[in-house]
Amino acid sequence: MRVLVLGGDGYCGWPTALHLSGRGHEVAIGDNFVRRLWDHELGVETLTPIRPLHERVALWREVSGRTIDTFVVDLQDYHALADVIRRVEPDAVVHYAEQRSAPYSMIDREHAVFTQVNNVVGTLNLLFALKDLRPDCHLVKLGTMGEYGTPNIDIEEGFIEIEHKGRRDVLPFPKQPGSFYHLTKVHDSHNIQFCCRVWGLRSTDLNQGVVYGTITGEISRHPGLINRFDYDEVFGTALNRFCVQAAIGHPLTVYGRGGQTRGFLDIRDTVRCIELAVQNPPERGEYRVFNQFTEQFSVGQLADKVQVAGAELGLRVEVQHLPNPRVEREEHYYNAVHTRLLELGLEPHRLSNSLLDSLLEIALQHRDRVRKDVILPRVNWRDIHNRRHGTSDT
Amino acid sequence: MRVLVLGGDGYCGWPTALHLSGRGHEVAIGDNFVRRLWDHELGVETLTPIRPLHERVALWREVSGRTIDTFVVDLQDYHALADVIRRVEPDAVVHYAEQRSAPYSMIDREHAVFTQVNNVVGTLNLLFALKDLRPDCHLVKLGTMGEYGTPNIDIEEGFIEIEHKGRRDVLPFPKQPGSFYHLTKVHDSHNIQFCCRVWGLRSTDLNQGVVYGTITGEISRHPGLINRFDYDEVFGTALNRFCVQAAIGHPLTVYGRGGQTRGFLDIRDTVRCIELAVQNPPERGEYRVFNQFTEQFSVGQLADKVQVAGAELGLRVEVQHLPNPRVEREEHYYNAVHTRLLELGLEPHRLSNSLLDSLLEIALQHRDRVRKDVILPRVNWRDIHNRRHGTSDT
Repeated sequence: MRVLVLGGDGYCGWPTALHLSGRGHEVAIGDNFVRRLWDHELGVETLTPIRPLHERVALWREVSGRTIDTFVVDLQDYHALADVIRRVEPDAVVHYAEQRSAPYSMIDREHAVFTQVNNVVGTLNLLFALKDLRPDCHLVKLGTMGEYGTPNIDIEEGFIEIEHKGRRDVLPFPKQPGSFYHLTKVHDSHNIQFCCRVWGLRSTDLNQGVVYGTITGEISRHPGLINRFDYDEVFGTALNRFCVQAAIGHPLTVYGRGGQTRGFLDIRDTVRCIELAVQNPPERGEYRVFNQFTEQFSVGQLADKVQVAGAELGLRVEVQHLPNPRVEREEHYYNAVHTRLLELGLEPHRLSNSLLDSLLEIALQHRDRVRKDVILPRVNWRDIHNRRHGTSDT
Repeated sequence: MRVLVLGGDGYCGWPTALHLSGRGHEVAIGDNFVRRLWDHELGVETLTPIRPLHERVALWREVSGRTIDTFVVDLQDYHALADVIRRVEPDAVVHYAEQRSAPYSMIDREHAVFTQVNNVVGTLNLLFALKDLRPDCHLVKLGTMGEYGTPNIDIEEGFIEIEHKGRRDVLPFPKQPGSFYHLTKVHDSHNIQFCCRVWGLRSTDLNQGVVYGTITGEISRHPGLINRFDYDEVFGTALNRFCVQAAIGHPLTVYGRGGQTRGFLDIRDTVRCIELAVQNPPERGEYRVFNQFTEQFSVGQLADKVQVAGAELGLRVEVQHLPNPRVEREEHYYNAVHTRLLELGLEPHRLSNSLLDSLLEIALQHRDRVRKDVILPRVNWRDIHNRRHGTSDT
């Protein structure tokens, strides 16, 4: 199939593009490199020294014999986006091209508004381009498990049957997102569902959990294909951040009591889930939701696991409970259904000691690149004038 | 109380500002007059010859002795908006300042994106301004009953208790909006609820039904205070549009089978509901939802009522079923709870023959101003390149 991966230079997009290319699909990447710009804005860097996209793609061609076309495109620019759709004629578009950090969206008004406009308008433009030019194309959209929040009932996959006052209906699962970023994914979900219903588009909304790991089968074929590995407070997510902290002797920064429970998955499962979604498109007019994660952990449990794995490598790992910069429940019920991708054939990579070892090894290998001053949280949900990293303190 | 009415030059905003002023509140209006601009864009005009805001406010001062301050402000301009908040120091902000037409949002990509950015960013800017400058201020936000769509269960006021697999929670009522405009109100609701939870703001989200009528007690004090009366396909809503059609001998344009059922209310109840919300603010951190309508009708029932009332005035009124330009269920269950405003003291003006008579009289009085060519629907939900009125056909 012809697959366009938007945001294909990013942490999930790059390994997804390689995986689909390696599995024989004709892959094109669209990206505007703004994720690399945000590193400069925040004064941070990926732990791993990733190469520019044009080098990575050339290298992939050397090792695999397969070509990935690249397009520099900002989804805010409708005409540029439409031009890419016209040239690629995709059967599926995998859409990662959004600002994906909750703390980034909570820095201040400018970052909140930027995140909402960037994500919502980018997706609207894509919906209009597909309706106009490729109405049969399958939109594979990355959402987040964070759309649901932490309700006191089981979380279903997108929809829930409700019996109320003697009547029944199957309705969208209620959403309680926890940041301006998470809100954009809820807005997108409503917009996409509407377009499927009114225009007959087809879409899979993948409510993804927190991704960990950095290496996939394709990436391991050459060191120059190495993927991002973010550990800073804004773009680093829990498990990856903990591994870096363990490697450099920084206490693991658990926010609040650490009872916050979420769905997690290995990045090798991310790329496989996308492949399964692409290979099994929904009907025209169908909007479907898969919960894309494999296991549930609390933040405290993750810290414990990293502590144990670190000890086995001879690292002394401490856990530090910080005042929670976020506004969230720290002890709560959490049970989310995630069967639809398993039914399509997903065989999960469960979080293992060997995976933790390999993450710790990567962190140790690059420990001289770590900047300790970007680890502690500065972005507080209760404040609207946060001083982000990368801003002069004087 | 000091009340700032944003969108105070519009169909609901103007009578709301007068009503609150007449009841002794210190009222200020913020508006950027873009609603008047859209009339020019579409080549349409309100049936009633409304005067410029500065004249209306001067006239109100003459007849009532009360002053209404006015501010020209676009909510997209954060600093201008913050300046108004700083100067007015409102105890409550009534927020009507959004693009409120579903067909306008469905014209094409540009109008869809404009509507979503205008409404979502305007409300975000207002939330940030309140958090920064007036965190105790009560945000009275106009939503729409259209956020809920037409579920097969009773519609509750914003939240629903769900029992699921042996557990219970009270969760936001699932939303199924029917246009890019209605989607913005859902996005706003999620954003506002989040800000109340995280920042401790207080807000009332008024999910308003379809408003009919044009005159309130305050407006009737002088002909120069006359309110808008829209009848075109883009901004005219069902009942008002039917009355104009009856007055000029145009068949009533019922879309599809006419079984579409919605909540309706008299504009005299709109202004009273706002007053009740303002007088009874929620607690700090509370986000509450009232369903603001008084009666349910199907579109077909409304057409029948106008036909009967017209006949009594000697008008021959025909009903014409047009192919539905919207994508919506035309026969469906509909039962929406609307008790919270009644509990606060609302005494509804039910739809009566005398109200229909007065609307028909106004329409007859201004019949020479009616442009018949802007009545038939041109904006089709299934198309993304609609030719709007006001565009040259050549």
